[in-house]
Formats: sequence, C-alpha cells, structure tokens
Amino acid sequence: MPVPRVIVEVMPKPEILDPQGKAVHGALPRLGFTGVTDVRQGKRFELTVESADEATLAEIARMAETLLSNPVIEDYAVRVDPA
Amino acid sequence: MPVPRVIVEVMPKPEILDPQGKAVHGALPRLGFTGVTDVRQGKRFELTVESADEATLAEIARMAETLLSNPVIEDYAVRVDPA
Repeated sequence: MPVPRVIVEVMPKPEILDPQGKAVHGALPRLGFTGVTDVRQGKRFELTVESADEATLAEIARMAETLLSNPVIEDYAVRVDPA
Repeated sequence: MPVPRVIVEVMPKPEILDPQGKAVHGALPRLGFTGVTDVRQGKRFELTVESADEATLAEIARMAETLLSNPVIEDYAVRVDPA
C-alpha cells in the first residue's frame, strides 16, 4: 500500500503583485518562448502522513494557514495525492 | 470560456536533500502538529496560455527543463489545469 501524501499548494492572491512570476514571464521572450501571456509562481508542499483521514486534513489546513502560507497575500489549497 | 492554464510543478528529486522541507518538518512539533512524517518543498507555476495545444505543451516542457527547474536536482511535471 502506498504511503498517503497530502499536497498543499500556496499561490500569491490574484490581486497581489508576483515579482518572481513577472521575472520568469519577462525571461521567456529572450529565451525564444512565445504563447505564454502570464506566469504566477507559488510553492508546493508534499506532506507524507500516517493516515489521510479527516482529522489529519483539518490539521494540515491549519498548518497551511499558519506556517506554510501567509494568508494576507497568499491562497492555499489542500488535497490528497491520488498517486 | 475560461482562459487555458498550464501548471508546472517542480520538486526536489527524492534522493536530493531538501533543506526547506526539513525546516518546515522540524517546525511542526514545536507548533503542536503531529502525524506528518516528511515534508518536501517545491515550486508551482501557473502559466496562462493562448491555447493549451500540443505544440504549446511541448514548448512548456522545454521551458520547464531549461528555465523553471534545474534538472540535475529537480523533477518537473506539466499538466493542463482542468479548472
């Protein structure tokens, strides 16, 4: 049986400037890439857990809100890794 | 019609030390969180594209390999955002 994993995705809120994403976007034409109109950069956490039950997911949501993201400027999403 | 978006996920290779993930993992017990046995931290890019066709996805795979990740120490995955 595979070990359960939970993914936490943290992205800058849409209304917040994202200098990292802007830098990547600005580099694309210089490298010959076209067709991408915007880039946003965020973080991705893979948490290995003992069990992906509801209590653990609730705890991870609190973790995402207090430790993994800054809720003033970032949104987060928690989901169980289907793999 | 929603604007097509492509997600690029970049994670440290399993055999590579991940000091950011280790730091998060080490902070969890101090904050009262239990039940998480490992943390890996990576990056997540949201690319807004004109069209999520095969040519664009092939270009984004090249972009992921040359600009968004360091293939010596990181793995990447490209997928179309279903949202």
